[in-house]
Amino acid sequence: MIRLHVHQPLSAGAALAATLGQSRYLTQVMRLKAGDDLLVFNGVDGEWRCVVAEVLKKGAVLRADTQERPQTYGPDLELIVAVVKKARVETIVEKAAELGAKRVRLTITQRTNADRVRLDRLDAIAEEAAEQTGRLDVPVIDEPVKLEAILDRWDDGRRLMFCDEAGGAPVASAITEPGPWTILIGPEGGFSPEERERLRSLPFTTAVSLGPRILRADTAAIAAMTLWQAAVGDWER
Amino acid sequence: MIRLHVHQPLSAGAALAATLGQSRYLTQVMRLKAGDDLLVFNGVDGEWRCVVAEVLKKGAVLRADTQERPQTYGPDLELIVAVVKKARVETIVEKAAELGAKRVRLTITQRTNADRVRLDRLDAIAEEAAEQTGRLDVPVIDEPVKLEAILDRWDDGRRLMFCDEAGGAPVASAITEPGPWTILIGPEGGFSPEERERLRSLPFTTAVSLGPRILRADTAAIAAMTLWQAAVGDWER
Repeated sequence: MIRLHVHQPLSAGAALAATLGQSRYLTQVMRLKAGDDLLVFNGVDGEWRCVVAEVLKKGAVLRADTQERPQTYGPDLELIVAVVKKARVETIVEKAAELGAKRVRLTITQRTNADRVRLDRLDAIAEEAAEQTGRLDVPVIDEPVKLEAILDRWDDGRRLMFCDEAGGAPVASAITEPGPWTILIGPEGGFSPEERERLRSLPFTTAVSLGPRILRADTAAIAAMTLWQAAVGDWER
Repeated sequence: MIRLHVHQPLSAGAALAATLGQSRYLTQVMRLKAGDDLLVFNGVDGEWRCVVAEVLKKGAVLRADTQERPQTYGPDLELIVAVVKKARVETIVEKAAELGAKRVRLTITQRTNADRVRLDRLDAIAEEAAEQTGRLDVPVIDEPVKLEAILDRWDDGRRLMFCDEAGGAPVASAITEPGPWTILIGPEGGFSPEERERLRSLPFTTAVSLGPRILRADTAAIAAMTLWQAAVGDWER
């Protein structure tokens, strides 16, 4: 069944105006007609079965019918990722949505060779991936911020899983407490020696290894999120 | 340092003719000149430090100098993956090289919506990813074959990790023996009920779960290879 993310409140009988893009997708790509069903979520009110009430020129009108699933959220997993080439950042955002991250924070490191970031496009990728993967919220994507600034203002209740190319512990043995975690993935040129030293000295950091081969940034991000979910996330429940 | 995969024998003093594409890459993209060093491997003789001996019009000539690493191979991990959209098959092949699979077998399942497969392009992707990731061999990519035919001619010494959307055991607890393994990833529409029944009934199959969300085929392949490497592969050594 088609799933759509909306920004409007959902309750029994609520009328929802689909955006023009959504209306085009529903009526022209998926060929829905008045009376057809779909699933809708907004990140707050759970998942609702909705019906296409009317197809107007200015867009489709949906009507919420019954709640199919109450709102739930995945574990508190964030990803900080150095800005890499556009296509790889897009892959990382799509996979973060599929693998249950709640937030992707882009960062500039000393060796970041920053490509332009189009946040509106990344938001759209995150939304579409969330619709397809079945989750009930959409990850938030943050503007690029310098890594130093992020570390300066760290929330002490949150741990940092630092994927260190120079080696670290296996994730399964190093990551055992389920509390809030952030995974940090560096740029393809790696972290600078100063960055590595600072990262390793921080009290909230756990350095982990992602195996003996050199991984591209998108591969490292996907592998790290997978191992985290399997270790303390919602994959083993 | 630049790494190049070649198809010629490597020994001290051996002369190697780079292909035209490689020569262009070395001299025009990477701006190497006669006397510059690079690393070369052929999947058999280990990794050799080579020097650019001459840059001729018909291509660069390299000379093998010293062996830097003896030949090693990763664990015996194969991937069988249903043919999906071209871009996702290409991602899977690239990631299989980075994540240490030795072979990728493309397959046609009952619900495969097969895109055209260009094996020459997939071979080039596997080769480039192997060069960048630091391994000493290149994964073999096989032509698409029907899943039934693959299962009919199964090697009994090999186990099959079946990533079942309908659920299975967590990888870390289900995959504990390091022997030869093949990971099977289905098409985006999933396996048919008959296929699932046959797969589950085979004596060499272990059904595993990849978490509570629906994953695209490329995400599933990367996640499965990661968990396998962490469980019984070369990531924890």
